Order: sequence, then structure tokens, then C-alpha cells
Amino acid sequence: MTKGASKVMPGDELVFVPLGGAGEIGMNLNLYGYGPEAKRQWIMIDLGVMFGGDDTPGVDVIMPDPGFIEEHRRNLLGIVLTHAHEDHIGAVGHLWERFKVPVYATPFTAVLVRGKLDEAGILDDVPLHVVPLGGALKLGPFELEFIDITHSIPEPNCIVIRTPLGTVLHTGDWKIDPNPVVGRKTDIAALRRAGDEGVLAAICDSTNVFVPGRSGSEADVAKQLETLIASCKGRVAVSAFASNVARMQSVIKAGTAAKRHVALVGRSMHKISNAAIETGYLKDIPALIDEESAADLPPHKVLYLCTGSQGEARAALSRIAVGDHPHVSMGPGDTVIFSSRVIPGNERLIHQLQNDFAMRGVEVISAEDHDVHVSGHPARDELADMYSWLRPQIAVPVHGEERHLMEHVRLAKSLQIPQAIHAPNGSVVRLAPGPATIIDEAPHGRLHLDGSILTQGNDSAMKERRNLAYAGFVAVTIVLDGRGRPVAAPMVVCGGLPEGAADSALEAAIEMQNRLSGRNDDDARIAEDMRRAVRRGVQSVWGKKPMVKVEVVRTG
Amino acid sequence: MTKGASKVMPGDELVFVPLGGAGEIGMNLNLYGYGPEAKRQWIMIDLGVMFGGDDTPGVDVIMPDPGFIEEHRRNLLGIVLTHAHEDHIGAVGHLWERFKVPVYATPFTAVLVRGKLDEAGILDDVPLHVVPLGGALKLGPFELEFIDITHSIPEPNCIVIRTPLGTVLHTGDWKIDPNPVVGRKTDIAALRRAGDEGVLAAICDSTNVFVPGRSGSEADVAKQLETLIASCKGRVAVSAFASNVARMQSVIKAGTAAKRHVALVGRSMHKISNAAIETGYLKDIPALIDEESAADLPPHKVLYLCTGSQGEARAALSRIAVGDHPHVSMGPGDTVIFSSRVIPGNERLIHQLQNDFAMRGVEVISAEDHDVHVSGHPARDELADMYSWLRPQIAVPVHGEERHLMEHVRLAKSLQIPQAIHAPNGSVVRLAPGPATIIDEAPHGRLHLDGSILTQGNDSAMKERRNLAYAGFVAVTIVLDGRGRPVAAPMVVCGGLPEGAADSALEAAIEMQNRLSGRNDDDARIAEDMRRAVRRGVQSVWGKKPMVKVEVVRTG
Repeated sequence: MTKGASKVMPGDELVFVPLGGAGEIGMNLNLYGYGPEAKRQWIMIDLGVMFGGDDTPGVDVIMPDPGFIEEHRRNLLGIVLTHAHEDHIGAVGHLWERFKVPVYATPFTAVLVRGKLDEAGILDDVPLHVVPLGGALKLGPFELEFIDITHSIPEPNCIVIRTPLGTVLHTGDWKIDPNPVVGRKTDIAALRRAGDEGVLAAICDSTNVFVPGRSGSEADVAKQLETLIASCKGRVAVSAFASNVARMQSVIKAGTAAKRHVALVGRSMHKISNAAIETGYLKDIPALIDEESAADLPPHKVLYLCTGSQGEARAALSRIAVGDHPHVSMGPGDTVIFSSRVIPGNERLIHQLQNDFAMRGVEVISAEDHDVHVSGHPARDELADMYSWLRPQIAVPVHGEERHLMEHVRLAKSLQIPQAIHAPNGSVVRLAPGPATIIDEAPHGRLHLDGSILTQGNDSAMKERRNLAYAGFVAVTIVLDGRGRPVAAPMVVCGGLPEGAADSALEAAIEMQNRLSGRNDDDARIAEDMRRAVRRGVQSVWGKKPMVKVEVVRTG
Repeated sequence: MTKGASKVMPGDELVFVPLGGAGEIGMNLNLYGYGPEAKRQWIMIDLGVMFGGDDTPGVDVIMPDPGFIEEHRRNLLGIVLTHAHEDHIGAVGHLWERFKVPVYATPFTAVLVRGKLDEAGILDDVPLHVVPLGGALKLGPFELEFIDITHSIPEPNCIVIRTPLGTVLHTGDWKIDPNPVVGRKTDIAALRRAGDEGVLAAICDSTNVFVPGRSGSEADVAKQLETLIASCKGRVAVSAFASNVARMQSVIKAGTAAKRHVALVGRSMHKISNAAIETGYLKDIPALIDEESAADLPPHKVLYLCTGSQGEARAALSRIAVGDHPHVSMGPGDTVIFSSRVIPGNERLIHQLQNDFAMRGVEVISAEDHDVHVSGHPARDELADMYSWLRPQIAVPVHGEERHLMEHVRLAKSLQIPQAIHAPNGSVVRLAPGPATIIDEAPHGRLHLDGSILTQGNDSAMKERRNLAYAGFVAVTIVLDGRGRPVAAPMVVCGGLPEGAADSALEAAIEMQNRLSGRNDDDARIAEDMRRAVRRGVQSVWGKKPMVKVEVVRTG
């Protein structure tokens, strides 16, 4: 019998519902429900965001639509956070008000969540409970245990979820790093113990399911950075994900070993290093200097650790690359090291950034040509290890696009896991009793943070903007007197049309207005005729049809 | 002395000017000039396009701004095309009218150029001369020789350019494929001969300068495809670049070996196979079937060769992936093979496409997991071979982003080439007499095909559309009588604003109009005040400032 399990009542079911993260790598929102359907109790694991791209113009942040669990919020017992990456905690500040339940996190994660709640102005409202590393927690029928694992940020946790109907192991994001540089090692013994005790289902990271072998160790990157930086002559700038505190420490130590002073450049570097120091990490590193002082040192005495590895326009690295940073300048003889991966979709931006550095004569080193990065997610051999420790009855891949989930299902089956289930966002998976089955589809979708307004994902405003990006707009105002006679030339304003096309809009509007004179149609009819005439006129010259909006004003 | 060289006259110079392709991979436009500056004669090698992306909204095709050579068009002797890829011939139809000079190409390239001229309606105007493979040509002071090489399309050529001041070898796009499957092998003897004779400058492809080793052979891909396809049970769809006729032949043969009937799907597949057959390629392949007939065959008897490997929305593969193709449907048990690379910038689209297939239960195979693609560009060992054959005095890298050009300069120097020059677009490089020097910067830039209008690249219309994509627009019309009194409520139309933001625009406009009543300001002042008020009003609610355009109409 599962440790600490209470009695199973008739009608009890254990269900898993991913509302985010199962169909994309990012914006994780996992729900576990226990009890008979009518009075099921829920816990939420992670509540993250992902970032918008060129396909979501004007939308920087995207999060799962939590409508399904909002409906059941009275039975939601808490939000448990596995680790502090944005795709796991980024939506807490935006969405907590919809649930108003306690939040649980380990110390480092809690510091960063606190920052987000503060920004959202709800710090004093949220009961944020700090769970110690390896700690435990009881929420209604769920008994949770945090197990140390390794990833690319301090304090990643697997969550063991024990229920009367069996135990689920939710891996969170993980890898098996034999030497994580910062923080504890994977508690393999605890994972094995859970396996020995009996794991019903493993809900597991799929990010690198296509990658053979193992992900490698932060310690190897540390060594490579030390060698590389020792061989550099001029200034060195290293760019890495700020949240990777192990990398931060490795870079600082490599710089110090090369007798360089290290300066952090970029707001998130400072935010994360402060959080790390506050929670007991980065203890044995030398004093850092600020970027202003670094500017006064000879080039071979300086190392900058910068934000902006993804080519973000306003981040430190992009500003340095175009010579626009107030304190840091790089040129011939200097070296920039991209100690980071390329997030798909950012290729063009990153290549542009690297080209900008190349143009200034700065040598560019990246993971394409040197071993200066390892992933934080498990490659296939690590997945095989995890399954061998847990020996679950059921595997439910999450944290992946469809093709990752499918491949993970194949892999799990090849590892003799009795059941492996492809459960995209919204799947209501009954894990017990009986064989695992998708029994329902919960409402699911995306919310877009459009400026400061949360909208339903793929809403009409964003679609309009996408059309505007393609073909611009023409706004026409017609002023008529009471008898339908124009009292002025049509007012035409355009946006996004090249010269010839804008002229054609005005010509078409004038021609149409001349034909309107004295027509007794209603305004809607007149507006529609004008709209069509202008679209046709522009298309004949430009080959594209802009958005055309027409207003009719009556003055009498 | 260089073979066939005439006498060098006082003041003669040999110059090279890249107007496209040196700073990006794509839209190649290379100029060679000979003579004293005042009466220099020119030839153009290649005139290509590249394709727009999310950073150029509404612009599908981008080409080099040929303004510099347009000015000198009376001294332009001809346009020589190395091979038929779009980034080398794609702008001929758009720009030829600006030069009206003869065009030279080998047979396969000529067929595809003819298609472009036909589309542009200038087929009868353009003197298009077909040069035989390995042929020669004299244009004023330039004696040209075509040398067979290998690439990912039939009939790629190196061009030897002999002048009284020395010989240039323009490589075009190339690799050394020991078994190119279709077409002739690299004429290494001719390259060596040019080297023995003395090469002043090599102008050389930089695309894969960061790739160690060799690019591999089409024959290896053919073998891998044969093995893979033989092991497939259901329908198979292979996606490849249509212009890769060798790949097309390999796929067809692999399908036939597996006793499948092969159907080409997608317009470019048919266009290219017709051009190939017309010029004597694809001779020994079995008869193909059409996609309608294929639909009636059992799954294991069918192989589709499709366009759309880059996730292009309207191409065959995307339509199949979403179940929207009129004749081809794929499902569980079927396999799709991406026998192609991922062009940077297309990652998200391609992953979406692969996810769509995964969702349908179709197995996805790509170059990420199987050896189903080789590049058409030289890796480092091939570059080293080329330089060892040519032994040029000067290396000028082209066909690369800045970081490629810089690395290629480093590589050439490491190979003991006496001079290696980083010459970005617009550089006027004097190759002789004297050491190679950048002596001037020619005007250079981009033209955008925006709809059917050619605009200066990065023009204000596209910038406006980029802003519209971010924050939409508000158009306000105020109707005042002669004394400045509003005769109607302000007319406000919005595009791309979410609901709350649109409401705030109207409110701000009404409030401002109330304050305008009877003001004696001129219209420009009133419009500007209104514009600011609306932007402020929207920003306070939305956090973003839309484009606001205001018109004032006077009715008396």
C-alpha cells in the first residue's frame, strides 16, 4: 500500500489535466485531481508563461487559459512550483487573483516569485509558503514530497504525489548532472525509493527526447570556459541565461582564474545573483565590479557576464554589439562567448547579433563551434535511467511539442513501460482506477498579454494587426449634408501603404464620392460601397488589399 | 602571361564590387569592372533575390538595389548566371529592364530564366544566350570560361574571368561531390589548370565556412533514402527542395526500388522536372503517376515527392499536414521524410508542420535524426582543396553573413593565401594593379517587392506596418463648422486594438473634442492636440501607443 495513503472511497478517481506545456515547450500548467467528479479536489503544479514571437505581433507574453480550473477554484488546494524558470512561474503574478490559493515553492524559487508578486502589486495578498529542499507537504488527499534533481537553475524539484489511488511522480524540468557546480545533486536514492514503493504514473519532461546520449555536465562547461577565457587577449563578454546560476559561477571563476575582474551586465543578472546570494548560493566567489569601473581597466583585465544571448533588442549584448551601451564597448581583439543555446525562432536575431559583433572585429564563439553550453533537459539515456528508477505503470510525456510527446510515447513503450499516453493540453487523463484513459477534454487555450490587457489568445485584435502588418490600412471619412451631398472632399488617411498605393486610395475615394452625390442610400450602404471601391483601387495598383474602414458623417 | 590577355593600358584597373550576397546568404549580385575609372567596362555575375520574413512584413521578395550599376549601364556588357537558384537568378525578371543587356546561362539555367522572363512579360525583349557546359565567352576585356562544379542543382558553374590584369575565379555556389547523381562531376583538372596558369583572385562561397570536414555526397543520401523507404509500411511523402534534381532522381529511384509509384506534388516539382527533362536530365527514371491516380493505390504502393519543406503555408506539404490537400491524405502508419535543411528563420514554421503530422499519427523523419540531407555548399576541407588547386594571390569571400566572411578571411589566411579581404556589399575592391584594396564604397542597399511595387528596402511604409503590427491604429475625424464648433461627434475608427483600448480611444477623442469647442486654432494644431490626447488615453489603458492619424474637416 502506498505510504500514508488514506482509504479509497467509491467513485474516487485520480486524474491529470495538462492545460499548458503538453503541445508546446513552455507555459506549463499541470493539474492533478482526486475524488469523485462532483467534488474533486485539485492541485496545480507550475503556472508559467512563454514568450510571443513574430507570429504574435504586439504580444510579448503568452500563458495558458486557466478557465477550466478557475471554474473549480473552490476545490483548488494550492499551487506548487517545481522551479523558478519563467515557463513554470511566469504567470503567477498575472493569474493568481483568479484562484487566490496558497503557493508553495523552495527558497530560491520563492524569492523570485516574491519579486513577481511585488511587481503585480499582490505581494501582501498571496500566502507564499517556503518548502525546504527535500521537504514534504499535505494538501487534502495529496501528500507531496520534493526530491532534489538537477537542471539549469538552482533548486529544481521532482514532486512525488501520493494519493489513496497511487503515486504520481511529476518530474518537472530535469537532467542528471553528475556535477551541477551549484546546488545539490540528483537524489537518485529517493527516486529509486519511490520506484521501489511503486509509481503509478510518471509525468515527464520531453524537451530533448530526440537527443541521443546524455546532456552533459555544467562542470564540463566550466572547464571549457576556463580554458577559452584563459586564451583570450582582449576584453571578454560571456552571454548566458541569467537564471543559470551554475553557469554564472563558472564564468566568474574562469574570469578570476584568468586574472580578470568580472562585471555583471543587465538587470536579470543582478536580480538572479541577488536571489542566489540571498538563498545561500554563490558563496565562494570573488567580489564583482560594476560596469562603470570595468570600463577603466585594461582590456585583458575585464570580463563581462551579459544578458541578451537570444538577441533581445534592448538587452545588454545587443546594445554592446551596435556600440550603444553606456559603459561597455568591444572591438578588434575582443571576444564574445555565447554560452547558451539558440531558442527556436530566435535564429535570425542571434545571427544578426553575431554579425554585428563580427563587423566590429570581435571574435564570436558559440556552442556551434565550442563546447560552451549544455542543455538542462534529459537526453534519451537520462530518460531511460529515470524510467529504470521509477518503473511506473504509466508514462505521460509533457513539456514538449506534439512531435516530442509522440516520440516520448514511443521511447517509453520501447522501455517496457506498460502504458504510455499522448495527452495534449486539455486532456483529462484518468490515471486510476483502471487503465489510464483520456476520459474528457477540458477547455484549454491561451491568454495573450497584449500591452497590459489580457486577451483570449489569437483574438481578433491580434489578427487585425497581423493583417495590418501585411497590407496596412486606409481610413476614409465622408461628410454629407442632409440630402446626401458631400460637403467636403473625402478624408483619406493611410498607414503602411507605399506611395503609389496611397495615391490610388485617394483617387478611388474621390471617384467614388463623385458617384455618391445625392444618392439616397443609407450610410452603411454608402460606407460599404466606398470600402470596396478603395480596396479595389488600391489592389489594382499594389496587388494587396489593405484594411479599409469608412465612416459617414451627416452634418444636417 | 594570362592566356588570351590583351595589353594593359595606363590607368587600367580590375575591380570587384559585390552589391548583394556579401553580408547575407542570398540575393547575389557581383560586378567586375575593367579599365580606367572614367570608362570602366562591367560584367555582372548573378542577379538574385532573397525571401522576406517576419522582419519584413508584407514583403515576400528582396533584391539588391542595383542603383550603382544602373548608373553605369551603358558600360555593362552582360549578365552572366552561374546557376539557377533563386538567390542567383530571381531578380532577372524584376530588374533586367534597368540594364537591357544580354544574359548568359547554361542550358538548364536558361530554361528556368526563360520562365521568369515570360512571367515578367519580357521574354521577347531579352537576348538570352545559352552557353554550353564548359563553354567560353568574350565580353569586352573579359574572357570567361565556365568550369563544371557540383552543387545542389544541375549545372552549377565556376566562372574563370581572364583580363589583361590577371585572372579571377568566381566560384559561384559549390561543393565537391564525388558522385553528384545527376550532371557532371567537378572539373578538378580545369580548376588545377587555372591555378597553374595563375589566379589573381578567388571570389568564393562562404556559406559553410563554420562546418568542419566535407559536405558529403548526394549518392550517400540516395542510399539512405533507399534503405529508409524500403522499410516504410504505409504511404511515404518525401519533401525536398524542388531544384535539387539529383535528390528528385534519388527519391524516385528509391520509391521504385520499393515497388512504389511516385507522384510529384507541388507546382515547382513539375516546373523543375520539366526543365530537367527538357535539358537531358532525369532520362532513366520510370514513368511518374499523378496525385489523383496515386490516391487510388494501396498505401504501400505510393510515394509522394512534395514541395513545402520549409513550412510554406500554401505548399503541398502544409496542406497535407492539416488534411487540406485535395488528393493526398496521410495518417497513422504513414511516414513523412524531410530531405532538406532548415533555412534559418523557418524553424517555428517547420516544427509546426512536423507537429501537425505528429498529431495525425504520421511518423516524421528529418535530417535531425537521419542522414537524409547533405548541403550543397563547401565545408572547410573542401574550401582548403579549392584554395590548394587555385593558389590565388587574393581571396575575397562572398555568399555569407558578416560572421561567415570574417571566418572565411581567417581560414584563407591560415591556408597561406597572401591576401584575404573582408569586402561587404558596396565595397569597391581594386584587385589590380597593386595589392588588393577597398578603394571606395558604392551605393548599395535593398529593394523590396511590396505587393507589386518595388520600394527602397526598409522604407517608411514597411516601418509603419511594423508599428501597426505592434500597436494598431486609430483614425479620428473631427468635423467643425466655420467658427470651430464641432458639428458631429468625432469619428473614431480603430484597427488592431483590443476592446478596452478601443473604448479608451473613443473616450479620449470625445473628451478632447469637448475641449476644442470654439477654439480658434488652425487645423494642424487641433489635429496634433487630438492625436496626443488619443495616444495618451489609449496608452493609459493599454500600455501601448497606437499610430493615431487625425483629420479636421471644415464644413463652412
